[in-house]
Amino acid sequence: MAHGYLSDKRAHLARLKRIEGQVRGLQRMVEEEQYCIDILTQVSAVTKALESVSLALLNEHMNHCVVSAARAGDEEAGAKIDEVMAAITRLVK
Amino acid sequence: MAHGYLSDKRAHLARLKRIEGQVRGLQRMVEEEQYCIDILTQVSAVTKALESVSLALLNEHMNHCVVSAARAGDEEAGAKIDEVMAAITRLVK
Amino acid sequence: MAHGYLSDKRAHLARLKRIEGQVRGLQRMVEEEQYCIDILTQVSAVTKALESVSLALLNEHMNHCVVSAARAGDEEAGAKIDEVMAAITRLVK
Amino acid sequence: MAHGYLSDKRAHLARLKRIEGQVRGLQRMVEEEQYCIDILTQVSAVTKALESVSLALLNEHMNHCVVSAARAGDEEAGAKIDEVMAAITRLVK
Repeated sequence: MAHGYLSDKRAHLARLKRIEGQVRGLQRMVEEEQYCIDILTQVSAVTKALESVSLALLNEHMNHCVVSAARAGDEEAGAKIDEVMAAITRLVK
Repeated sequence: MAHGYLSDKRAHLARLKRIEGQVRGLQRMVEEEQYCIDILTQVSAVTKALESVSLALLNEHMNHCVVSAARAGDEEAGAKIDEVMAAITRLVK
Repeated sequence: MAHGYLSDKRAHLARLKRIEGQVRGLQRMVEEEQYCIDILTQVSAVTKALESVSLALLNEHMNHCVVSAARAGDEEAGAKIDEVMAAITRLVK
Repeated sequence: MAHGYLSDKRAHLARLKRIEGQVRGLQRMVEEEQYCIDILTQVSAVTKALESVSLALLNEHMNHCVVSAARAGDEEAGAKIDEVMAAITRLVK
């Protein structure tokens, strides 16, 4: 089940831990009924942080899985690119 | 400090609790080195969930703060709209 | 049919004229089979320019229509905010 | 200067022609001072259409340039992926 992106695994986990903390911070802000605009600003920060995680994961996926598939043959390449394009489309929308 | 959006407070907190769980799920997926594309799909789901929280908070802010400011006078209205437009701009980018 | 945002009408039209020119530039780039990444960069520029038009139109709408509706009564305010929230949701997605 | 994506060239040009027409339609809407929300809806439609052009171009770029670079060697692959990741990042933001 290992997919060979161990290199940045620690970095991804650290980012996700920080995002978890930010989401708990959002709960506190809502609990305390802080000002809506301040909460919205913080939600935007979390969204940006998640976007960075996505782009980092995508970068590794391209460098490992897409490159390997391209070298394995046309069919493998085509399938892998269809799959990654679907993921990019979900990211963009 | 209360800003009068208690009506949906429980709903916001429930959503944010669920998002916190999803972020912990993402950590588990990275920890277990699950397939990148599956993790990306899950990150997109969390981003969509945060987007819904933003839109719900924005909706309440418009119905309460922006409406009150509009009724309080032109200056109050102008200031509140500048503020909410900045928040919307952050959401859109 | 006039909706009272004449103030910035010239500015909106100038922006849209420039965007039309950028879209024609994109056609030329594709016609000449220029490098994909350069075309993508230019498409992103057009998208950003359209986003600015949206935010400028939304700003005027908030300052005029939403403020007037808020002053006209709760029902008018609610209807106008539902409508503008639907537009913001389309912008964000 | 040809970059080998002639296959879909006609389709890209047809899409961009239609987008040009939509942008001219937006100018007419502003000129006639049509309702802001209707103009915003139309701007969102143009943005979605441009997004589709981007994703189609990106798809071809992946299938041709990225695959070729992957086969040419690690250095070529790395450079091409850095470049396409920068383009995807601009698309996502």
